[in-house]
Amino acid sequence: LLYIALTIICAVTFWLVGMTPFEAVNHSFTTIATGGFSTSDGSIGHFNSALIDYTVSFFMIIGSLPFLLYLRVLRGQSNGFYHDSQVRWFLALAALMIALMVFWVWVNNVYNFEDALRYTTFNVISILTGTGYATTDYTAWGAMPVMIFFFIMFIGGCAGSTSCGIKIFRCQVLVSMSAAHFKKLLRPNGIFIPRYNGGAIDENVTGSVMSYLFLFVVCFVLLSLCLALTGLDFVTAVSGAGTAMANVGPALGPIIGPSGTFQALPDVSKWLLTFGMLLGRLELFAVLVLFSPKFWAR
Amino acid sequence: LLYIALTIICAVTFWLVGMTPFEAVNHSFTTIATGGFSTSDGSIGHFNSALIDYTVSFFMIIGSLPFLLYLRVLRGQSNGFYHDSQVRWFLALAALMIALMVFWVWVNNVYNFEDALRYTTFNVISILTGTGYATTDYTAWGAMPVMIFFFIMFIGGCAGSTSCGIKIFRCQVLVSMSAAHFKKLLRPNGIFIPRYNGGAIDENVTGSVMSYLFLFVVCFVLLSLCLALTGLDFVTAVSGAGTAMANVGPALGPIIGPSGTFQALPDVSKWLLTFGMLLGRLELFAVLVLFSPKFWAR
Repeated sequence: LLYIALTIICAVTFWLVGMTPFEAVNHSFTTIATGGFSTSDGSIGHFNSALIDYTVSFFMIIGSLPFLLYLRVLRGQSNGFYHDSQVRWFLALAALMIALMVFWVWVNNVYNFEDALRYTTFNVISILTGTGYATTDYTAWGAMPVMIFFFIMFIGGCAGSTSCGIKIFRCQVLVSMSAAHFKKLLRPNGIFIPRYNGGAIDENVTGSVMSYLFLFVVCFVLLSLCLALTGLDFVTAVSGAGTAMANVGPALGPIIGPSGTFQALPDVSKWLLTFGMLLGRLELFAVLVLFSPKFWAR
Repeated sequence: LLYIALTIICAVTFWLVGMTPFEAVNHSFTTIATGGFSTSDGSIGHFNSALIDYTVSFFMIIGSLPFLLYLRVLRGQSNGFYHDSQVRWFLALAALMIALMVFWVWVNNVYNFEDALRYTTFNVISILTGTGYATTDYTAWGAMPVMIFFFIMFIGGCAGSTSCGIKIFRCQVLVSMSAAHFKKLLRPNGIFIPRYNGGAIDENVTGSVMSYLFLFVVCFVLLSLCLALTGLDFVTAVSGAGTAMANVGPALGPIIGPSGTFQALPDVSKWLLTFGMLLGRLELFAVLVLFSPKFWAR
């Protein structure tokens, strides 16, 4: 019900800011789902409207926050989003990346300040949340933005949302574990417990997050290698593997960048990318477990 | 004493296979140390001798095995190298990478089989162990070898050797942890303990390896971003950050690839890479701890 309600609010808002009813309904479906399909080849860039850009950005964020929190807020059980550390980290990360990139794009005279803010906000949020809309070919902005887009692709939104990728929650657990290990180095006799949202993190959770990170890296490396075997160049293979596993959409490079499509790739590469998307969406274990004879023996 | 003995054996062997005494001594110093400096701009490629290539390959491996094992073997305490799982994994990984690349290079008609075996063996071992010698510009072999060279750069040799990088031991701990987690998924009530060389892995070790991997990834991402900020392109920045942190030597791309040098990079990039080399060589924590006020307060 919550999901349907959000989609309806989103569709009505899109209609109010200038989309046709057909476009509004279609885009609301893929914005709240952080899916990223558009009715136009030019994606959201087709509308060429700052108002629509910011509105879509807002709803992409709505789709990337933990859905349980909405329920808690509606029931009056939570102190609001700001008290959830995952939401805080997610918004802080998005703000930091946008600020960095606005600064770069503005200083390098790619856009004036207003356009810089508009284009970076939209595209950073689109790639970070894994929605995959684009309003312009951001790979033309220079080396630094390309690098940022490559790395934020992997992060994704909050756990419990519609977005994919490694997720903010996992990053927080990793940071908390590393911080605890670090404190232990400074005070070898101290007891330091990784914490999340104020509570201690269960060992099963840390083990599962760590295994996930390691398996993600291994699958990413193997997928990149296999893609290179099918003849793709370094940037296309590496960013293609990343965008598939993080379920984003656009990758980097001239072929599968934000202004290109996957259509030109060899069929074998497409099969590999298909498998990568499945792996990423089902969070690795659910797919990899199928390859274990023990799973089928039960 | 072991180190000196190995260096002397190495120098004498190099002299016997055709280097001048001066070259033999110099190259023995940087081979056993997996350091990678040569007396010639052409590195080991300068000698253009298959015998020298294979001999240097052999001694690079000698420098990448755990030194304590040599001592144990000399004292008759160990059943030999083959019974150490780290050595087995390292040699298996090297063999697999060489086989894959020989196949690619030979099938794509870059070299005949003999040359393919000679060049891939040497360069794969040089990059995997982080020595950094080169006998040819392997980035011209195509997309797949470039990808392999990029990823094996990070791995490094065995823990307890002179080589740098993430190290085989850490990879084994990560594999063992992920396998235990995986088995737990299939049999939720089972107790699965990560093992290494037959014994259970202490929780402090798994925590330390995991923190190391996560910090390595974070430092690598930040260093790549900073390098891109100084104006380097995607491949140069990413592979430069990797080669610095893994203490390898050559990176990828036209500027800092095996046939290029770091000389043309801006000074800021060089300072960043210097910091990256320090971080990698001292295994992150020893450097990062210096930035903690608590360390200085003691």
